[in-house]
Amino acid sequence: MPDHILVSEIFGPTIQGEGALAGRLSHFIRTFGCSYRCTWCDSLFAVDPSESPKAQRLAPEAIVAKIQALDRPAPWITITGGDPVDWDLTAVVMPLGIDHKIAVETQGALWQDWLEYCHLITVSPKPPSSGMADRLDPPVLQKYYARLRARMCLKIVCFTAADLDFAQRIHRFLPDVPMYLSAGTDIEHKAATAAALAHHYRWLAEEVITRPFLANTTILPQLHVLMWGQERGR
Amino acid sequence: MPDHILVSEIFGPTIQGEGALAGRLSHFIRTFGCSYRCTWCDSLFAVDPSESPKAQRLAPEAIVAKIQALDRPAPWITITGGDPVDWDLTAVVMPLGIDHKIAVETQGALWQDWLEYCHLITVSPKPPSSGMADRLDPPVLQKYYARLRARMCLKIVCFTAADLDFAQRIHRFLPDVPMYLSAGTDIEHKAATAAALAHHYRWLAEEVITRPFLANTTILPQLHVLMWGQERGR
Repeated sequence: MPDHILVSEIFGPTIQGEGALAGRLSHFIRTFGCSYRCTWCDSLFAVDPSESPKAQRLAPEAIVAKIQALDRPAPWITITGGDPVDWDLTAVVMPLGIDHKIAVETQGALWQDWLEYCHLITVSPKPPSSGMADRLDPPVLQKYYARLRARMCLKIVCFTAADLDFAQRIHRFLPDVPMYLSAGTDIEHKAATAAALAHHYRWLAEEVITRPFLANTTILPQLHVLMWGQERGR
Repeated sequence: MPDHILVSEIFGPTIQGEGALAGRLSHFIRTFGCSYRCTWCDSLFAVDPSESPKAQRLAPEAIVAKIQALDRPAPWITITGGDPVDWDLTAVVMPLGIDHKIAVETQGALWQDWLEYCHLITVSPKPPSSGMADRLDPPVLQKYYARLRARMCLKIVCFTAADLDFAQRIHRFLPDVPMYLSAGTDIEHKAATAAALAHHYRWLAEEVITRPFLANTTILPQLHVLMWGQERGR
């Protein structure tokens, strides 16, 4: 068992802004550290090594205690990052999974057996606009599919037409896994406005409508950004 | 069999903006006529008798043909209104249900046996801000539950705290039916801005977070309004 985990933030309840649980109340655990450096990463504070001194070093029991101390209920706990699959979270998900459903968000580059104790795993391969598309590892993705198929979904954050081409290839690779296309938020504009978000979401929807191969996907904006801009801890 | 149905519009594919299929591609059939007059109705053109001359009188086969003539695919067909349960749509849903999944949106005041041939029924009881809350008919709601339980969800459009009290009562009445809370759009402001929508959505989310009894609901904005404002046929 690890003696500590680097954690960027623990908060909740708030509204899950993306994917299969969009609009659902969830607590969040954001672990620190990620093997990717996406150009548009919206959580660099949980990724960049220079930020690691600000992360908390917590034992698994301390993470569990912090969630249990949150004063309002949520049916879900979402473990995100960074990439939470960097860490051994067995001693976090086992106790928390008794009273909550556990969702995990990962880019799908790594594997941990504790994923099998969770209720929903959102795998988010990074498309060309991230600069990380060449890191896609089909055998790891296939392992997710083989072990987690019934509780797995795919989420692709899309900024460009090339990102949609990438989403189509992933959808062809795993056609029976529900796919969510998420209109990305341009981090260059820290005060992402609702109007800019609406405009990009409209672009994504109109693009998908012209691509019959993507007709069975779900197209969503980032609801947390719509509500709260890019505030931390919301 | 009826020889015609009054139809306000048939269009698609577009993005379903609310409820369990939010973000999914769907064609739409909007029937004309409704026994309610909600103060904030966003489809008065499909409700107000003065608009009926503009509705098309279509035989069921003609409705089916118009959907089949749409030039791009969508997995779902959503039948909305007005209140589609005003009409005998058996000869519409039977053939269309072969190649599509059929979703129906109704306030749940009426019943038709053809509902049992559909794949998702969204019942939308109208809260106090609509002026129609006293029309709620629990025995009809119970009939929906008895006959459609596994493919039924509830959607409450919310403008006020009293609307959330109403949603809580409905949720207590049918606790195992998935409930979607939708941030209503103020039709007084025809050019509903993304910023106004975001503000109202944030209000709804923050209100729900303080109400543990609603923690298991899903809270969404109206995505079609975010994308397209209040354009028709989108």
